Amino acid sequence: MTRAAAGSVSETLARFVAFSEWTDIDAGLRHEAKRSLLNFFGCALAAASDPAVAAAAAVMRDFSGPARLTVIGRRERLDAMGAAFVNAIAANLLDYDDTHLKTVVHPTAPVAPAALALAEQHGFSGVSLLHAFIVGAEVECRIGSAVSPGHYARGWHITSTCGVFGAAAACGKLLGLTVGELAAAIGIAASQSAGLVENLASAAKNVGVGNAARNGLLAALLARAGYMAAAQALEGPLGWARAMGDAPAPEAFSAELGTRWEYAANTYKPYPAGIVFHAVIDACLELRKRFGISLGDLQSVTVRGDRLLLDRGDRPVTNARDARVSIHHCAAVAFVRGRAGVEEFEPPAVTNPAIVALRRKVYVECDPSLPSGGAIVIARAQDGRSMSVRVDAALGSVAQPLSDRDLEAKFRDNAARSGGAMDAEACIAAVWTIEEAANVIPLLQLMAGA
Amino acid sequence: MTRAAAGSVSETLARFVAFSEWTDIDAGLRHEAKRSLLNFFGCALAAASDPAVAAAAAVMRDFSGPARLTVIGRRERLDAMGAAFVNAIAANLLDYDDTHLKTVVHPTAPVAPAALALAEQHGFSGVSLLHAFIVGAEVECRIGSAVSPGHYARGWHITSTCGVFGAAAACGKLLGLTVGELAAAIGIAASQSAGLVENLASAAKNVGVGNAARNGLLAALLARAGYMAAAQALEGPLGWARAMGDAPAPEAFSAELGTRWEYAANTYKPYPAGIVFHAVIDACLELRKRFGISLGDLQSVTVRGDRLLLDRGDRPVTNARDARVSIHHCAAVAFVRGRAGVEEFEPPAVTNPAIVALRRKVYVECDPSLPSGGAIVIARAQDGRSMSVRVDAALGSVAQPLSDRDLEAKFRDNAARSGGAMDAEACIAAVWTIEEAANVIPLLQLMAGA
Repeated sequence: MTRAAAGSVSETLARFVAFSEWTDIDAGLRHEAKRSLLNFFGCALAAASDPAVAAAAAVMRDFSGPARLTVIGRRERLDAMGAAFVNAIAANLLDYDDTHLKTVVHPTAPVAPAALALAEQHGFSGVSLLHAFIVGAEVECRIGSAVSPGHYARGWHITSTCGVFGAAAACGKLLGLTVGELAAAIGIAASQSAGLVENLASAAKNVGVGNAARNGLLAALLARAGYMAAAQALEGPLGWARAMGDAPAPEAFSAELGTRWEYAANTYKPYPAGIVFHAVIDACLELRKRFGISLGDLQSVTVRGDRLLLDRGDRPVTNARDARVSIHHCAAVAFVRGRAGVEEFEPPAVTNPAIVALRRKVYVECDPSLPSGGAIVIARAQDGRSMSVRVDAALGSVAQPLSDRDLEAKFRDNAARSGGAMDAEACIAAVWTIEEAANVIPLLQLMAGA
Repeated sequence: MTRAAAGSVSETLARFVAFSEWTDIDAGLRHEAKRSLLNFFGCALAAASDPAVAAAAAVMRDFSGPARLTVIGRRERLDAMGAAFVNAIAANLLDYDDTHLKTVVHPTAPVAPAALALAEQHGFSGVSLLHAFIVGAEVECRIGSAVSPGHYARGWHITSTCGVFGAAAACGKLLGLTVGELAAAIGIAASQSAGLVENLASAAKNVGVGNAARNGLLAALLARAGYMAAAQALEGPLGWARAMGDAPAPEAFSAELGTRWEYAANTYKPYPAGIVFHAVIDACLELRKRFGISLGDLQSVTVRGDRLLLDRGDRPVTNARDARVSIHHCAAVAFVRGRAGVEEFEPPAVTNPAIVALRRKVYVECDPSLPSGGAIVIARAQDGRSMSVRVDAALGSVAQPLSDRDLEAKFRDNAARSGGAMDAEACIAAVWTIEEAANVIPLLQLMAGA
């Protein structure tokens, strides 16, 4: 009952992780991982001084063992469990991190912090870190793909619920666990998988993401210490998928594993807002440029989107967390400011009178014919004129990816917000050259920004 | 979006916890809590030297802050997060802890360790500890009741998934959180609720129970640090209950809250095995006494029970964890040994030839007419004679509760197994007089057994 049965989901994924060789990872995938890490570090830096990050770090300070590891953009140092928790929270906090669009998993926030903490603690190489991160992110995206779209729609915050598997796999790879131990780590992760969509506009969201990193690390450490899990922890009759309400086909986890990479479709956000709002922002920025009327002449803005967009984004706005997942706020800042950067979602913008006034003129309509991630925005002037823009693939999506230069610019902007004395160019160079690093510690020292 | 709405489940439970006064707790309930604690400490002591407890303690040692708190029956000391984790694992490990039969929640293992760690850290009084434990256990049993029996049947290990709420509530009470903070702690717990029935025969089960204690404590600490949760984290459209697959009626959480106590129906096990097997063991012990044939003359033992009994217990036995949740092993040890104590479920008994041989003669049949927790056992002799015993309410159930003297005897037996130099009588006295203790530290020092 407690050994990984041949062909169980845990064992299939464990074999993939255990037997993956660095030489199996092609140049494109290696480069994507560096893009993910650069984006990750920047997002964490931009949030490093946020009260939610400070509070998480303060709570963890009392529960931190002797290892003194990097908290990105902050002075304090924490043990691996604490650093993984706080860095995952920071990376995801501003809704600015990466997205695997098919699943709406934000792959890097739960996986990288756990792997980085362990790699820093043991002084592992850049290649070890990169390799562990890639296979961990693949496990996370594979499990997410197997249960999408029903899983998220039912209320599971998929970044948290699937992130814990990715963190467990990445840490297990770094620790050199056997197939049996890796299968146990994945099965233990199944008993730690949690996080709710209902909580997305609150700090409880951060706890889910932080726990995915922290508990994934714990799963790997307990597996190394001999802890086992049910062979069919994921697919068994009383296992993870059924309890969660999912009925994945077995091949969803395993088909072309190691040759086709789900993680390779990772994308990066140009705006710090929920991914489903990016098409809305693109359309509003376009209208602002082309419609040629003043704000005062704008009578209404109608946003049409699919059910997911409305479910996620048709909500009252009382604080920055709401703003990042509000259709009304995203549309309003695009028209008022002509941009949707980090400041446009910070408290001053949330209560800015012009933005508040325009939020009230934004109307929302369901259009099930639109693709997920698409939107139509119709602006109407007081004089009766109107103009409409349709966006099917937002800036930053797979069809319109951010370039390496875009990601570098995003990193510089984020690093400047950290409050620390960041050497952004050195950080960028260190990420692009991580494969040459015999030890990840110098990279993390740069990211501490002390 | 992030404040507890009047009448939300989180706020209803938070108000109950915040406004509960010690004088509201009657003598019967206070005594029940002491019985629960005595039973809890004994179960943790009996498992203190188990490799799974030692491994959990070793992993947590590297992640332990300066607070040095008691690990029951062990020399090492850990911070509150580590002590809560390890003590919860130990208390539940042998399947010997308490049971709220209506929900199959084991109330004390996730709640008491979190509250004890916090109380020891701050030097709180026995009354504070007892009060926090009682309201925490009530929150846990209320939430469990609202989603039973579907929740467990779907694969959720209810002790873990509901225990995290109880631990959060108990810790929040000890920390003197406001209603808003307590509601946040409960909402944060919802994003940490996890644990699978599929994993019950493996160490991954222990992780779920340990996390319920550890993460419940974290929920309370984060709420105190300002973390919020969605108002309707439990009952919202994308909240805990819906994601978990449950549709509880709102009054299930709140009806007669503070006057009718779900926790008051707590029960204690005479045998260290899954609660559903207790009627099977009772019936077999009775048959052994009355049937009057030798083991060699026994041809077969047929166990009839409801679906839950069969789902939980009709399984191959390869180790002690399987044995504790096996119909075949429970029946076999009762016939072979005439008792079902801790040794009957330890590795030597699992591979004992007479017990193994008899396990093969045990047959299982479904009888949906039997009440949950009941069983009929039919023994057949080689010569064709047979005898049948039916047990509707097992020893230890609400109808046949263990007495205080029974619980003391159970504690003495468990304490003797701890490997430490326990003063069992002093421990027992300290639990019965906990209301008089100005500080819980001396009680915990006794339980450390150093």
